[in-house]
Amino acid sequence: MKFYNVPYSGNSYKVRLLLAQVGIACDIVEIDILQGESRTPEFLKINPNGRTPVLDDNGFVLAESNAILAYLARGTKFLPEDRQRWALVFQWLFFEQYSHEPYIATSRFWLQHKPDSPERSAVLAARRDGGCAALKVMEGHLSKNDFFVTDYSIADIALFAYTHVSHEGGFPLDDFPKIRAWIERVKTQPGFIPMM
Amino acid sequence: MKFYNVPYSGNSYKVRLLLAQVGIACDIVEIDILQGESRTPEFLKINPNGRTPVLDDNGFVLAESNAILAYLARGTKFLPEDRQRWALVFQWLFFEQYSHEPYIATSRFWLQHKPDSPERSAVLAARRDGGCAALKVMEGHLSKNDFFVTDYSIADIALFAYTHVSHEGGFPLDDFPKIRAWIERVKTQPGFIPMM
Repeated sequence: MKFYNVPYSGNSYKVRLLLAQVGIACDIVEIDILQGESRTPEFLKINPNGRTPVLDDNGFVLAESNAILAYLARGTKFLPEDRQRWALVFQWLFFEQYSHEPYIATSRFWLQHKPDSPERSAVLAARRDGGCAALKVMEGHLSKNDFFVTDYSIADIALFAYTHVSHEGGFPLDDFPKIRAWIERVKTQPGFIPMM
Repeated sequence: MKFYNVPYSGNSYKVRLLLAQVGIACDIVEIDILQGESRTPEFLKINPNGRTPVLDDNGFVLAESNAILAYLARGTKFLPEDRQRWALVFQWLFFEQYSHEPYIATSRFWLQHKPDSPERSAVLAARRDGGCAALKVMEGHLSKNDFFVTDYSIADIALFAYTHVSHEGGFPLDDFPKIRAWIERVKTQPGFIPMM
């Protein structure tokens, strides 16, 4: 198994975390998106959408971080079999990619990798409300639940990836005590590995 | 079963199309997001994220259009059991929500529901490249495949919803003959219903 990984990306980290927790060995191929390595003709043959991460399981190529999580988790405790819990895991995976990542991860990317400029300020301002809204939804859910869907699952892994570094995107968690407590719970899960 | 539906939304239409094709009867509750009906205190009790559509299956509440598709399709031919095909269906569902819908559906919403203004022009301009890129990825895939994952599945349903009305978002399909042919194939599937 081969994994095309961006070391500083939460979307890549999600998969590395799950791989560690299910105990699957995997060759890591480092991709530097800042150097355009996900847009080369060679990479576009692997993923025509030019996005990372990508899994290559003995010739079967799969893109989209949360689809990779689902693929690796199927049949394990990280994706519950029960129909309703199973669906709720996907609900949170789609929430993460639609309502969370485009605000919090994108802000972090601009703050970490782009110099200050009017464009950067505009990007950050445009993502402010959406990021706060996503964190509020998470805080509300975690005020009544230890994990997103009953027990620790790929829903937690997906949301953990960018939430635990959200301060690097300008979203400190001071006002989100339930999220902070959940982050600590995730860190104590067997096989946990840090992002960097 | 009860479905909170926005009549002019592709995300709602996806689910209505699948319901018709699997033959599940469902009560429809119309929600007018233009009147703020997805942000009322009552609706936020149903979905704290304030987004539509939402399914209520005898008290089990599920949000996120593509998670609803997966829930309804599990165990049917619309979500293949084979592990790799199953994962590829999810790959395309995440592609739709991350790389397609935020550009093409959002442009359509602004063009259909907001008056012309410098803000609208800026929104449309910012979504132009992303929408074209998504269509190019689809065209490339459909040049070698009749459907997104072997046979007609919820991957096609999810992508069909906004693609077949992409001209309403300023993305005509003149340069995408393979997409146009796929649209016609989708329309001939048993149980197909139109959006409006």
